[in-house]
Amino acid sequence: MGSPLLSDLATEIIIPVCAVVGIVFSLVQWLLVSKVKLTPEPNRSPSNNNKNGFNDSLIEEEEGVNEHNVVAKCAEIQTAISEGATSFLFTEYQYVGIFMVVFAILIFLFLGSVEGFSTKSKRCTYDITRMCKPALATALFSTASFVLGAVTSVLSGFLGMKIATYANARTTLEARKGVGKAFIIAFRSGAVMGFLLAANGLLVLYVTINLFKLYYGDDWEGLFEAITGYGLGGSSMALFGRVGGGIYTKAADVGADLVGKVERNIPEDDPRNPAVIADNVGDNVGDIAGMGSDLFGSYAESSCAALVVASISSFGINHEFTAMCYPLLVSSVGIIVCLITTLFATDFYEIKAVKDIEPALKNQLIISTVLMTVGIAIVSWIALPSSFTIFNFGVQKVVHNWQLFLCVCVGLWAGLIIGFVTEYYTSNAYSPVQDVADSCRTGAATNVIFGLALGYKSVIIPIFAIAIGIFVSFSFAAMYGIAVAALGMLSTIATGLAIDAYGPISDNAGGIAEMAGMSHRIRERTDALDAAGNTTAAIGKGFAIGSAALVSLALFGAFVSRAGIQVVDVLTPKVFIGLIVGAMLPYWFSAMTMKSVGSAALKMVEEVRRQFNTIPGLMEGTAKPDYATCVKISTDASIKEMIPPGALVMLTPLIVGIFFGVETLSGVLAGSLVSGVQVAISASNTGGAWDNAKKYIEGSEPHKAAVIGDTIGDPLKDTSGPSLNILIKLMAVESLVFAPFFAAHGGLLFKL
Amino acid sequence: MGSPLLSDLATEIIIPVCAVVGIVFSLVQWLLVSKVKLTPEPNRSPSNNNKNGFNDSLIEEEEGVNEHNVVAKCAEIQTAISEGATSFLFTEYQYVGIFMVVFAILIFLFLGSVEGFSTKSKRCTYDITRMCKPALATALFSTASFVLGAVTSVLSGFLGMKIATYANARTTLEARKGVGKAFIIAFRSGAVMGFLLAANGLLVLYVTINLFKLYYGDDWEGLFEAITGYGLGGSSMALFGRVGGGIYTKAADVGADLVGKVERNIPEDDPRNPAVIADNVGDNVGDIAGMGSDLFGSYAESSCAALVVASISSFGINHEFTAMCYPLLVSSVGIIVCLITTLFATDFYEIKAVKDIEPALKNQLIISTVLMTVGIAIVSWIALPSSFTIFNFGVQKVVHNWQLFLCVCVGLWAGLIIGFVTEYYTSNAYSPVQDVADSCRTGAATNVIFGLALGYKSVIIPIFAIAIGIFVSFSFAAMYGIAVAALGMLSTIATGLAIDAYGPISDNAGGIAEMAGMSHRIRERTDALDAAGNTTAAIGKGFAIGSAALVSLALFGAFVSRAGIQVVDVLTPKVFIGLIVGAMLPYWFSAMTMKSVGSAALKMVEEVRRQFNTIPGLMEGTAKPDYATCVKISTDASIKEMIPPGALVMLTPLIVGIFFGVETLSGVLAGSLVSGVQVAISASNTGGAWDNAKKYIEGSEPHKAAVIGDTIGDPLKDTSGPSLNILIKLMAVESLVFAPFFAAHGGLLFKL
Repeated sequence: MGSPLLSDLATEIIIPVCAVVGIVFSLVQWLLVSKVKLTPEPNRSPSNNNKNGFNDSLIEEEEGVNEHNVVAKCAEIQTAISEGATSFLFTEYQYVGIFMVVFAILIFLFLGSVEGFSTKSKRCTYDITRMCKPALATALFSTASFVLGAVTSVLSGFLGMKIATYANARTTLEARKGVGKAFIIAFRSGAVMGFLLAANGLLVLYVTINLFKLYYGDDWEGLFEAITGYGLGGSSMALFGRVGGGIYTKAADVGADLVGKVERNIPEDDPRNPAVIADNVGDNVGDIAGMGSDLFGSYAESSCAALVVASISSFGINHEFTAMCYPLLVSSVGIIVCLITTLFATDFYEIKAVKDIEPALKNQLIISTVLMTVGIAIVSWIALPSSFTIFNFGVQKVVHNWQLFLCVCVGLWAGLIIGFVTEYYTSNAYSPVQDVADSCRTGAATNVIFGLALGYKSVIIPIFAIAIGIFVSFSFAAMYGIAVAALGMLSTIATGLAIDAYGPISDNAGGIAEMAGMSHRIRERTDALDAAGNTTAAIGKGFAIGSAALVSLALFGAFVSRAGIQVVDVLTPKVFIGLIVGAMLPYWFSAMTMKSVGSAALKMVEEVRRQFNTIPGLMEGTAKPDYATCVKISTDASIKEMIPPGALVMLTPLIVGIFFGVETLSGVLAGSLVSGVQVAISASNTGGAWDNAKKYIEGSEPHKAAVIGDTIGDPLKDTSGPSLNILIKLMAVESLVFAPFFAAHGGLLFKL
Repeated sequence: MGSPLLSDLATEIIIPVCAVVGIVFSLVQWLLVSKVKLTPEPNRSPSNNNKNGFNDSLIEEEEGVNEHNVVAKCAEIQTAISEGATSFLFTEYQYVGIFMVVFAILIFLFLGSVEGFSTKSKRCTYDITRMCKPALATALFSTASFVLGAVTSVLSGFLGMKIATYANARTTLEARKGVGKAFIIAFRSGAVMGFLLAANGLLVLYVTINLFKLYYGDDWEGLFEAITGYGLGGSSMALFGRVGGGIYTKAADVGADLVGKVERNIPEDDPRNPAVIADNVGDNVGDIAGMGSDLFGSYAESSCAALVVASISSFGINHEFTAMCYPLLVSSVGIIVCLITTLFATDFYEIKAVKDIEPALKNQLIISTVLMTVGIAIVSWIALPSSFTIFNFGVQKVVHNWQLFLCVCVGLWAGLIIGFVTEYYTSNAYSPVQDVADSCRTGAATNVIFGLALGYKSVIIPIFAIAIGIFVSFSFAAMYGIAVAALGMLSTIATGLAIDAYGPISDNAGGIAEMAGMSHRIRERTDALDAAGNTTAAIGKGFAIGSAALVSLALFGAFVSRAGIQVVDVLTPKVFIGLIVGAMLPYWFSAMTMKSVGSAALKMVEEVRRQFNTIPGLMEGTAKPDYATCVKISTDASIKEMIPPGALVMLTPLIVGIFFGVETLSGVLAGSLVSGVQVAISASNTGGAWDNAKKYIEGSEPHKAAVIGDTIGDPLKDTSGPSLNILIKLMAVESLVFAPFFAAHGGLLFKL
C-alpha cells in the first residue's frame, strides 16, 4: 500500500494556494477588461497596452472610436441591463431565501430525528468498532454546509452576472477596433467568471472541511456525510437560478421576436422593441447566473460524492489526509492548467479574422484537456498511495493509483468528446446545421422536423461516451471511480465556464451595438462572435449534462451505500415502478417549463403589441418604449412559474422516500437519470442548431422559417434542457442527504 | 389447489368456437358494408335495410344520391387507392420476405447451436428431474412458429388494408345520406378488421399449440418456448409495416401539404394535387396495415409471454390444460364481449348529429371494459384452480384465482384510463387542444411550444396508470401477472381496432369526397367523422403503447428467467451502461425515422412543384396530374428508409447479447422500455393535438400556423411514435427467443 509522496502539510498548503492563484488571476483579467473605458476619452491613445501585440496586425481598421455619443449610449444601455439583472436577482433571492430557510429547518429536523435528537455518540455505520458523532451533529453540520453551499452558489451566479454586465458594452466598444480585440475582451470577462467560480468553490469547500474537522476530529465518516449538504445547497439554488432565469430570458426573447421580427419586421435587438432590455437582462440572469450556479453545483456535488465514498474507504478509515483530498487536489491542478490554457487565447495566439474565432475556442478545449491529462498523472502519482481500497457496496475493492488516474482521464476525455460532438451538431460550419438550414426552403415544418431529428441523433455519441466512461471508471474503482470521472470532466471547469460565458457576453455586445445605433460593420463583428458563442453555449451545456450524468450516478451510488441497500434489482416491482416514473419526470418537468415560457411569452407579446399600438412615434424611433413594464412581466412570470417545477424536483425524493422507501427511490433516481440525459442533450442541441441555422441563412427568403425554428428552440435550449441536468443531480444529492432518515423512517406506504 | 371447473374438453371446444364466431361476425359486417353499391343504381330504393332505424330520424336530408357521375368517380378513386396500396404492400412484402427467410435461418442456426445441433433429449431447464426435447427441436419449432407469426401478421395487415380500401368510398357515398349512415359504414368496416384480426390471431395460435403438442407431448416447457417464435414473427413484420408504412404515408402527406396547402393555397385532398393519391394510399398502408400488424404483434407477444411463464409454473408442471389456456380463454371471451359492444354502436344506439360521434366511440370503450370485467371474472372463476403456483425468478409463488382476476382487470382498466387521458389531450372538445389552437394567434412557434408541452404533460397519468398496473399485477402474480395484465388491456382488441381503423377510413372518405368534387356539406360530414377519428387514432396508439409497455416487461421477465439471471442490479456497470444506452435507442430510432420522412417529403415537394410548374392547366383543373410518380417516390423512399431503423432494432439485441452478454442486454431492454414509452406517448399525443387544433380553427387567420404544427406532428404521431412501441416489444421478444443462445455463447467481449 505505502503512503503518498505528498505530505499532509504540503496538501494543506497547495490547495488554498491554487485557489488564491485562481482568484488573483481572475482579478487581473477583470483589471484588463476594466481598461476599456466606458466614459468618453477626448485624447484617447490607442496604444494603452502594448503587450497583446494588436497594434500592427489589425485586419479591420478602427471605426467610430471617437464618437462620444456612442460611448455614452453604450454606457447607458449597459447600466439599464445591469440594473434590471441586479433587481431581478435580488427579487429571486428573496423568494429563494425563504425556501432556503424552510429547507434548512427541514434538513435539521429530518436528520436530527433519525436518532430522536439524541446527543449521545453512536457506533459508526461502516466501521462498527469505532464511535462516531451523534446524528444530531450530522443534522446540524449538514444544515450548515447546505446554507454555505447555497450562499456560495448564489454568490457564483451573482458575481458572474455582475462581470458579464460589466463586460458587454466594453466588448461592443472594442468591436470598433476589430473582431480580435472584441474577442479578447469577451473571453477575458468569461475567464473572470470561470476562475472566480472554480477557485471560490474550491476554497469554500476546503475551509469548510477544515472547520468541520475541528469538531469531528477523527470521525471522518460523519464529517464527510455532513459535507454532502454543501452539494445540496449548491444545486438547489442552481435549480431556481436555471429555471427562474431560463423562464425570464426566454419569455422576453420569444416575446420580443414574435412581435419585433415576425410582425413588425424590425431587426433583433432593435431599441424600438419594448422587450429588448428584458431580453438582454435575461441573457445575464439565465445563461450567465443560472449556468454559473449550475456548474458550481456539479462541481460541489462531484467533490462531495467522491469525498463521502472515500471517507468509508481506506483513505478515510486510515485517516490519510492527502489521499482523502485527492478530489480537491485534482481541482487545484485544474485551476493552474486552465490558467495556462487561457493565456493561449489571450496572449499566445491572435484572432485575426472571423474564421479564427471558433478554432480558438475549440483549441481551448483541446489544450486544457491535454495539459490536464498530465496534471492528473502528476496528482495521481504524488497524492495517492500505490494501492488502496475503495468501498463498493459492502466490500472493499483494491485499486491502484494508475487505475484512478485512468478513471479521472476517462471523464476528462469523455467531456472533450461530448464537446466536439456538440460542436459538430450545433455549429453552422458542418453539414447537420446546414441540412437544417436547407430544409427551411420548404418552410418551418420541415425545419422543425429536421431540427428535432438532429437533436435526437446528437444524443448517440455522447451517450456512448458516458457509457464507456461509466464502465471503465466503475470497473476500476466502483462508485469512487465514477465520482472522480465526473471531477475529471469538471476539472477544466474554469476554461469551460470562460468559453461558455463568452457566448452571452457576445450576444449582449451585439444587442448593445444595435441599440446604440452603431454601424452595420460593428454589428457584423459582434454577430460573428455571437455565432461562435451559440456553439460554445451548446458545448457548455453538453459538459453540464455529461458531468451531471456522472455526478448523479456517483451520488446515487453513495445514496445506496448510505441507505443500506445491497442491490437495486429492476425485476422487483418497487424498483421498476420507480424506474418508469423516474423516466417520466423529465417530461413532466419540461412540460411545466415549456408551458411557462409559452404563457409568459404570450403576455409579453400582448404588452409589446400594446406599446406599438398606443405609443405614438415608437415605430418611427421618435418615442422611447416603456422597457420597465416588459422587465416586470418577465420578472413576475419567472418568479411565479419557477415554483411548480422547483417543487416537483425538491418534493419528489421526499415523497417517494417517505411513502415508498429507498428501493423505489433508487428506481426513480436511475430512471430520471437515464431518461433525463437524453431529453437534455437533444433539447440543447436542437435549440443550438436552429439558432445557428437561422444565422447561416440570414437575409434569405427561407429565413422566416428559420426564425420560427429558432423561437421554438429558445425554451428547449435555455430553459428545459439545461434545467434537466439539475433535476437529475439534485434529486440524487437530496436523496443522499436524507438517506439516513429514509432508511430509518421511510417507506410508510409499504409498511402499512 | 383443486382443479378448474371447466373441463379440458370444454376448453378445447370454447376457444376455436369463439374464434370462429368472431370470423363469422366479421364477415357479416363485411356483407352489410358491401350493400352500399359502388355502381350507379338507376332505381335505387333508399329503404334497402330497415332494421337500423335510420329512415325516419335523419337530421340531414339526403343530397346528391342520384348523381351517377359522382358514384363512378368515387369508385374510380377507390380503385386507384386500393391498387396503389396493394402494389406497395406487395413490394414491401418482397423485401420483408427476404428478411424473414434470412432471419428464420438465423433463428434455426443460433438456437440449434446451443447444444451443438444434438438430436438427443436433455434434462429440462426448470424441472431437472424430467427429460425435455433437444435444443434442435426448439430451434426447428421456433423457426416454424416465427414464420407462422410473420405470415399471420402480414395477413392481418393486408386484410385490414383491403377492407379499408373497400369501405372508404362507400363511407363517402353514405355521407350523402347523413352523418349517421356514414358513421355506421366506417365503423362496421373497422369492426370487420378488428374481429378478423383478433379471431385469426387466436385461431392460428391455438392451432399451432395443438399441432406442436403432437410432437412435444408432455414437454410443455419446450413447447411454449418454441411458441415464443410466434410473437417474434408477428412483431418483426409489424416493425417493417409500421416504419415502412409510416414513412410512406407521411412523406406523401407532408409533401402534399407543403406545396398544396402552403404554397398553392388549395385545400387538402384537392384532386389537382399530384401527391393526393399517394397520401390516401399512405393512410391505408400506414395507419391501417401497419397498425393491424402492430396490435396483432402485441396480442401474440402477450399471449406468448403468459404461456411461457405458465409452462414453468404449476399449470405447466402439472399439465393442467385448461388453466394453461387461461390467456387464450380471456381472449376468446374478449371476442364475444366486443361483439356485443359493437352492437351498441351499430344497432342499439343511433348517431343523429355530429356531436354524437365522439360519445359513441367513447361509449364503446366503456361498455367493452365493463362487460369484459364480468367476462374475466367468469373465466377466472371457471378456468383456474382456486390457488396455484407461479414461477418467479427461481421460486414458486402461490397465487389465488381472484388475484389473477385482479391482475387482468388492472390491465384492462389501465387501458381505459390511458384511452380517456389520450382523448382529453387530443380531442378539441377539451381545454388542452383549445389552448394549443389559441396559441396559434401568435404564430407557429408558440403553437409548437405549446404542442410539445402538451405531449410531455400527457405522459404523466398514463405512466402512473402503467406503474400501478405493474405494481399490482407484479405483486400478485410476478411476471405472469404482468403478462395477463397486458392481455387484459388487449382483451378488447377487436373493439379497439374497430374504433382505431374507423379513423383512417373516415379520413379517406373525406379525401374521396373532395376529389370526387362532392358538395361542401358532405365534406363537412366526413370532416366531423375524421376529427373524431384523429382522437380515436390517438386512443388506439395509447392502447398500443400501454400494452407494449406491459408486454415488454413480461417478455423481459421471461427472458431473464430463461437466460438464468437472478437479479438485474442497476448498480453493476454492465447493467447500468445497458440501461443508459437502451434509454438512448428510442432517440436514435426516432432520429432515423423523422429524418427519413423529412427527406422523402422534400423529394415529394420537388416532384409536386415540378408538376405544377410543367403541366399546363393543372391548377385550373383542366389537366390531370401524374399521380403515379408520387406513388413511386413514396414507395421507393419508404422501402429504402425502413431498412436502417429496422436493422437497428433487430440487430441491437443480437449484438448486445453476443458481445456484452445477458446482463447488459437486460439493462438495454429495461432502458429502452422506460424511455421509449415516454417518447412514444408524447409524440403520438402532440401530433394528435396539433391535428385537431388545426381542425378547431379551420378557416381563421391563425390557421396557417396550425397547419405548420400539424405537418410537424405528422411524422411524430404516425411514424416515430407508433413505431417505438414495436421497438420495445420486439427487442424484448427477440431477446427471449435467443436467450438460450446468449446464455450459452454470449458476452464474448467480457469473456476475453
